[in-house]
Amino acid sequence: MTDLDRTHCERLDAHDELAPLRDRFVVPDGVTYLVGNSLGAMLKDVPERLHRTVTEEWAQGLVGSWNAAGWFDKPLTVGDRLAPLVGAGPGQLVVGDSTSVNLFKVAGSALRLRPQRSVVIAESGSFPTDLYMLQGLVGWTGQHRLELTDSAGPSLDDLLSDDVAAVVLSHVDYRTGELLDMPSITRRVHDAGALMIWDLCHSVGALDIDLPGSEVDFAIGCTYKYLNGGPGSPAFAYVAPGLQDDAVQPLSGWHGHAAPFAFTTDYEPAEGISRFRTSTPHILSYTPLEVSLDMFEQLDMSAVRGKSQALSELFITLVEQECAGFDLSLVSPREAARRGSQVSLRHPRAYQVVRALMDHGVHGDFRAPDVMRFGFTPLYLRFVDVWDAVAALREVFAGGEWQSQPEPSVTAVT
Amino acid sequence: MTDLDRTHCERLDAHDELAPLRDRFVVPDGVTYLVGNSLGAMLKDVPERLHRTVTEEWAQGLVGSWNAAGWFDKPLTVGDRLAPLVGAGPGQLVVGDSTSVNLFKVAGSALRLRPQRSVVIAESGSFPTDLYMLQGLVGWTGQHRLELTDSAGPSLDDLLSDDVAAVVLSHVDYRTGELLDMPSITRRVHDAGALMIWDLCHSVGALDIDLPGSEVDFAIGCTYKYLNGGPGSPAFAYVAPGLQDDAVQPLSGWHGHAAPFAFTTDYEPAEGISRFRTSTPHILSYTPLEVSLDMFEQLDMSAVRGKSQALSELFITLVEQECAGFDLSLVSPREAARRGSQVSLRHPRAYQVVRALMDHGVHGDFRAPDVMRFGFTPLYLRFVDVWDAVAALREVFAGGEWQSQPEPSVTAVT
Repeated sequence: MTDLDRTHCERLDAHDELAPLRDRFVVPDGVTYLVGNSLGAMLKDVPERLHRTVTEEWAQGLVGSWNAAGWFDKPLTVGDRLAPLVGAGPGQLVVGDSTSVNLFKVAGSALRLRPQRSVVIAESGSFPTDLYMLQGLVGWTGQHRLELTDSAGPSLDDLLSDDVAAVVLSHVDYRTGELLDMPSITRRVHDAGALMIWDLCHSVGALDIDLPGSEVDFAIGCTYKYLNGGPGSPAFAYVAPGLQDDAVQPLSGWHGHAAPFAFTTDYEPAEGISRFRTSTPHILSYTPLEVSLDMFEQLDMSAVRGKSQALSELFITLVEQECAGFDLSLVSPREAARRGSQVSLRHPRAYQVVRALMDHGVHGDFRAPDVMRFGFTPLYLRFVDVWDAVAALREVFAGGEWQSQPEPSVTAVT
Repeated sequence: MTDLDRTHCERLDAHDELAPLRDRFVVPDGVTYLVGNSLGAMLKDVPERLHRTVTEEWAQGLVGSWNAAGWFDKPLTVGDRLAPLVGAGPGQLVVGDSTSVNLFKVAGSALRLRPQRSVVIAESGSFPTDLYMLQGLVGWTGQHRLELTDSAGPSLDDLLSDDVAAVVLSHVDYRTGELLDMPSITRRVHDAGALMIWDLCHSVGALDIDLPGSEVDFAIGCTYKYLNGGPGSPAFAYVAPGLQDDAVQPLSGWHGHAAPFAFTTDYEPAEGISRFRTSTPHILSYTPLEVSLDMFEQLDMSAVRGKSQALSELFITLVEQECAGFDLSLVSPREAARRGSQVSLRHPRAYQVVRALMDHGVHGDFRAPDVMRFGFTPLYLRFVDVWDAVAALREVFAGGEWQSQPEPSVTAVT
């Protein structure tokens, strides 16, 4: 087989149906941004929309905008708009707070829904905040405990028992990019009588997800990665319709009350998904997400997933072709169907390599001790960007550029 | 004594040292905005600063802005800037999440700090979310209970006992505007061996507050009322330095970890106030608050409090002078030193009166069943605004305008 070249990548771009989307984003000159799996790029419409939110809704509409501009119900209305991205319908998602806080809500609910069971299972390599929040939750009750699956230790099947209330797993692993089989795992968890909670942070917006089709009980996720909601945009929680009216979540604030403006003394949960609200939504942080949803509403997620796979597949192929002999190894699954939208490579000097790539305008990120991650967001990346990234990687190694970079210090953010 | 008139109010404005501040805010034409106790007005610098946050920090700086633009530490750096407004020093406040979520954190910590005690005391007339969150918290442990003081029932002294872990009270009552005596109550709570948690939502930014001077243990509050942080701007939590390293809060997310980027499996709380962080801050929602703090840093809070008292005192005097015989009664304390920055009036048709006032450009708000609230934010209100509001109130009654307004429905937002 002939080697691929940049011209080949240009041809792929020329035939890419999603290519025009790039023009809706700000991508700084000279930057090949492969960190969209951490913080998505900004859509060009954001500044103007945000200007309107503050100058019209806030400055002119003042407190009346809680009703007139729909502020009060943003967690529900934006939730309904986000729902199709995870295969859900209206009244199944709420948008607000952070992913961590939402995990506390749904995991707390799951424990209450399985009162005779005392174990929560998670995976030792989960993004740490999931583990930390679950530790806080079980530590709080004193009647529950957290058990961890581990690639070198017990598997999920080893740990599943009739004492397990809930299982929390990441749909896509933040380090390796491995995609788990949602329907099959959910089924095994249900067979054990437990509830399934999926963390979609590293999949939503890049994959075709069907929560109801997989009979998922709860899901949480953030909106600032592949959904381009901006730094700290609000997270979401999905609750299966059949569970909503029995679920009692611990962060029982007034926005989740059945009659928030009756100002009664006793908490009474609202019907449906609304009981997963807590309190005043961070309005300005919703605006960029709404701009992004304007775009997502026009997209076919299977096409988005298709391009995502094509990009990461091209990256791996080009690394194999251009960077053989540089002591790089693939951390992510080789099979596209088992990967999310990122590729992770291992190298003993990964930190320095990532730094050296920055000098070529290629943004990737580093996870201690020796992993570099490259995110392939299909909305604003081109196939030539993949070429350019690999070409830069080859130069970093061929020229020994990484050797002049400093040793690792703590910098990365998920 | 001669009646006061509008000319008198104009003279007060002419001698008001804080009068120039109004020009830094957007106050819509023809509006007398007396709801700053619910949502503060917007500072004129906000749109430009927000534009910079998104176009420079996000769009150009991308994920690197978590470090380069100081995003990651906003909860701490903005907390340090807010601290002087409550008499606190650096490392004592954290800014993030909502007031409700912060109450869960500090009340949870208080219960852990008093492990032999099982009662939390609150006031039945508190803003409901405080009660609801505490119900969620004590319901979660199953080992604690909430007891309520009530104007018609048990007093704080009736309920204080050696089984009380914590007391939660609002510094200023959201309905009546009554200001509680922070040092004296805190002392009584401490005498009973309990911890004191103050909710500052309705006082911060309008009053001169000294948490350390009152030996307060914990405080929480929002920043969108008198602090003008915008809709859903992040809330804050204060933790007395002496308690920080023993406090364990239940929402133990990765941003509160001792080494958030070490990605270890076990939660280990950071030293100091940082352990009260949970996870990714809602960055865009911080920007208007930072603009507001630029202004507050130049202000003497005793002057702010002085003008606040003068405005509300003038309002009551003018209501007595202009609206006698209209069946209005004062809900707030008559003594200025016992009031926050709002005045509440009772009238059997309060809802219709508030609606009719809107036709005069006077914005107040309604609390069921029969209270209207008027907030006097000293930064952008003039003494003539107080005159105009009372003149409108007189017209609403004198002309019977309220009679054509519809019956109450649920609309108001705190």
